[in-house]
Amino acid sequence: MRSLFLTLALVFNLDLLAFAQKTFPITLIIHGGAGNISRTNGTPEKEKAYQEGLQAALAAGYAVLEKGGTSLDAVETAVRIMEDSPLFNAGRGAVFTADGRNELDAAIMDGATLKAGSVAGVSTIKNPVTAARAVMEQSEHVMLIGNGAEKFAQEKKLEIVSPEYFYTEPRFKQLQKIRETEKPQLDHHSDTTGSTLPIISEGKKFGTVGAVALDKFGNLAAATSTGGMTNKRYGRVGDVPIIGAGTYANNQTCAVSATGHGEYFIRYTVAHDVSALMAYKGKTVGKAAEKVVMEKLVKAGGEGGLIALDQKGNMAMPFNSGGMFRAYKNAKTSGVKIFKE
Amino acid sequence: MRSLFLTLALVFNLDLLAFAQKTFPITLIIHGGAGNISRTNGTPEKEKAYQEGLQAALAAGYAVLEKGGTSLDAVETAVRIMEDSPLFNAGRGAVFTADGRNELDAAIMDGATLKAGSVAGVSTIKNPVTAARAVMEQSEHVMLIGNGAEKFAQEKKLEIVSPEYFYTEPRFKQLQKIRETEKPQLDHHSDTTGSTLPIISEGKKFGTVGAVALDKFGNLAAATSTGGMTNKRYGRVGDVPIIGAGTYANNQTCAVSATGHGEYFIRYTVAHDVSALMAYKGKTVGKAAEKVVMEKLVKAGGEGGLIALDQKGNMAMPFNSGGMFRAYKNAKTSGVKIFKE
Repeated sequence: MRSLFLTLALVFNLDLLAFAQKTFPITLIIHGGAGNISRTNGTPEKEKAYQEGLQAALAAGYAVLEKGGTSLDAVETAVRIMEDSPLFNAGRGAVFTADGRNELDAAIMDGATLKAGSVAGVSTIKNPVTAARAVMEQSEHVMLIGNGAEKFAQEKKLEIVSPEYFYTEPRFKQLQKIRETEKPQLDHHSDTTGSTLPIISEGKKFGTVGAVALDKFGNLAAATSTGGMTNKRYGRVGDVPIIGAGTYANNQTCAVSATGHGEYFIRYTVAHDVSALMAYKGKTVGKAAEKVVMEKLVKAGGEGGLIALDQKGNMAMPFNSGGMFRAYKNAKTSGVKIFKE
Repeated sequence: MRSLFLTLALVFNLDLLAFAQKTFPITLIIHGGAGNISRTNGTPEKEKAYQEGLQAALAAGYAVLEKGGTSLDAVETAVRIMEDSPLFNAGRGAVFTADGRNELDAAIMDGATLKAGSVAGVSTIKNPVTAARAVMEQSEHVMLIGNGAEKFAQEKKLEIVSPEYFYTEPRFKQLQKIRETEKPQLDHHSDTTGSTLPIISEGKKFGTVGAVALDKFGNLAAATSTGGMTNKRYGRVGDVPIIGAGTYANNQTCAVSATGHGEYFIRYTVAHDVSALMAYKGKTVGKAAEKVVMEKLVKAGGEGGLIALDQKGNMAMPFNSGGMFRAYKNAKTSGVKIFKE
């Protein structure tokens, strides 16, 4: 009885504290994909370009939070900037399918309401993450695909671009090289394409961008966007637009955005599994994310990583691949990282 | 220490028992959708037709298990029979989109390996569940959509049909009626279409078929298939082809196939949540399914139900709607039910 009383008193005090502060520790984490990243297969110039790209997205997203904006606005802003950069495999920098097209996927989720939106297999929407948000907020649906999703985006006056917008020389060369192998690029162990692109093979397999944020209202949000796999066929969809796999947010537990070999992330329901381990096992966000990425996925052979954040601002950024483009910021700390520490 | 010893002894004995029997209690559960089903909006003839349709699918699927077949073969067989029936909103009986097309989705998952396959937005594949299985077994992907998925199915020599195959008079009339409302049919509270179809509104919203099975090897499997929502637009995809939402299987916990308002089932990661409550909270399949369907979904306003099965043959069939077409069979019992008991 005494411990119950103490617990109640503690909970009450924490609530009072939160109420008194009327604010939560605003935090933003972003990622630009994971893969076989190492200094040996890159140059200092490329490394710097990625760091600057991440820094720009981080600064813009964090500025939203600092001005009292919502976590949804922050993750959308950060992801849009990475979508607009040719460096990352999302939006403008999307890789090519076997048909020489770009098919993009994206998702967003609101941890306060569990509302979510996603698009898959779109080719003319400049910012898929914004289309995902429109699905969430302006339709009664969660997931729209292909031409239907594009029609919806047009009707909602989102920015439409011609397919050439997504044509970037390095990505196209990447396709030509990979086509010689006659299969979708699944080899992530080395960059064998001779591409002038990144210091890594991220463009081939783990090219994804994402963000998770906590705003001053205590609301979590997650967003993820990708250009898919180079040389992919058959309208393949990975984990990114699958709520619970590549993207998930729930104020009661955490916000998660994943990047990795999508098929494994779907089969292991990665993002929701992190949340479930917190909700049902009482694990911290760090322990839950570690369990899923460094134990379950490693055992299964599923390479990649994720970023995760809870309502107290605790951050997790585990990855079981060579590296993961990532950046984070709160009132006390910030950083931009690529390799293992 | 003593209780640890007893626990170990118990586990060991159970293992010995399973090994001695070299078999598990083969079980099949199927569903044909949930919705506002009541005797007042139907006729005895319609009720009988649905019961016979369910019985046929159940018998065929169970025969697979009895002959020593796998749970994957059993769920595929049962779902194919419901896909081939014009009664259910899947395969042949698929409802029409706003464009007067039929866009079908399906998924399958193997509880032994966590391998999974799904297709979404396909219009020419006779049996989408078989396409989903082909994706799982004959591709390195989990999810294929639209034209790409159809091309894949063609290459794998699956049965392709012309769009007219899916034209059924009652479903087309349903579209005409619903078109007058100028919105996708989301009203599940009454059948306002004047359709000559079912005793319910299942064709509009909750039309889905699915199956979960346990074979003698102790392997669980789940499969789900749907024709979507009448008058739907924009390439909307519901929970059916989303692994962890409408379909999930894991030998460690359970196999789940859901039917309901798909958007809620995606947002609440329903199928994986049942599994997670078993894995992390130690709940039985019955308690876990009850928690998700009768508490979480009811609170959220998400109508529908699911069928679930664990490795011991324990069954769960909760639904929070007026009724759910369902049937089940094991060595000791069997039944075909539509309404609440």
